[in-house]
Amino acid sequence: MRPLHVAFAGGAAGPWRVVSIAPVAGPSLHAVKRLAVVEGDAAPPPGAAWVLRGATSNERYTTRAEHDALAAVSRPLGRELATRAALIPIRKSAAWWALAQDERRAILEERSAHIATAMRVLPAVSRRLHHGRELGEPFDFLTWFEYAPGDAAAFEDLVAALRATEEWRYVEREVDVRVEMSGGSS
Amino acid sequence: MRPLHVAFAGGAAGPWRVVSIAPVAGPSLHAVKRLAVVEGDAAPPPGAAWVLRGATSNERYTTRAEHDALAAVSRPLGRELATRAALIPIRKSAAWWALAQDERRAILEERSAHIATAMRVLPAVSRRLHHGRELGEPFDFLTWFEYAPGDAAAFEDLVAALRATEEWRYVEREVDVRVEMSGGSS
Repeated sequence: MRPLHVAFAGGAAGPWRVVSIAPVAGPSLHAVKRLAVVEGDAAPPPGAAWVLRGATSNERYTTRAEHDALAAVSRPLGRELATRAALIPIRKSAAWWALAQDERRAILEERSAHIATAMRVLPAVSRRLHHGRELGEPFDFLTWFEYAPGDAAAFEDLVAALRATEEWRYVEREVDVRVEMSGGSS
Repeated sequence: MRPLHVAFAGGAAGPWRVVSIAPVAGPSLHAVKRLAVVEGDAAPPPGAAWVLRGATSNERYTTRAEHDALAAVSRPLGRELATRAALIPIRKSAAWWALAQDERRAILEERSAHIATAMRVLPAVSRRLHHGRELGEPFDFLTWFEYAPGDAAAFEDLVAALRATEEWRYVEREVDVRVEMSGGSS
């Protein structure tokens, strides 16, 4: 599948009600009431306070064995029960991007267990990673997570575990946007 | 360094005179007389017959040892003696992009010796890789090579060696654009 362009627009319109926007590292995003997730070439709702863009892409670190293990227990986005979601934009440091592939892989998985940690919350949490770095965006990654209210604690554990890793020392900007599904678009 | 956006514009303007445009796999590009290489946010010359865009990015396959070995003998673009250049746009197949990281690495280097083969023409050939896939471009990669006329044979050997590899079975479109530096812009 070719990359899918996705725009996350924070403003007054969109099916997701914004519950919180918290800066984790570096500056936050402006407070907004609603979030729209716009796929492909469609225009984001007019008047958005911010629009973050990214593209899905091929996997950069997972081995075939890891990919197959993840795929077996991953669920698609858009499940009716998944009325909570999180958008976590991240920018990594120049030091991260200057590392070679084997060095980044060693930090990400062998020393930080990023993939293994994510596996623990499957199938409860659906997720999709979007790359913004080559698009000239302020964030390198936009990760979108969807989960049911009953799985919120597992999701918090995931986020906390990742933020405690060696990999996260290379995160120079991170914002944590939490939303929930609620009827109406404004 | 953050990714650099680069546009390759084929038309009637630009410092590079087009010597040949040859389809290697799939459809070719329209014949043009000149090529302009435009970095950053600058606009390509008006009236171009085609504009191919890409962004430099982090390395995806090289290990630290390979990176350091390459860096030690790599030369920058823009050398005065390098009056020949090649733009080789490539699109890889869906089968390639569905492979996991370890599978792509194994094909690219352990079985096709892509990095080791490229090393053989250093420092004679300068090169820069641009990624277009996440930009929604028709080509996944735009590789730009610069070399002196006396190193043309070494460059042909490189191109021929790569095209004979297992990796190249995943190339579904490739065009080979050869240019040379000549005074004036039209």
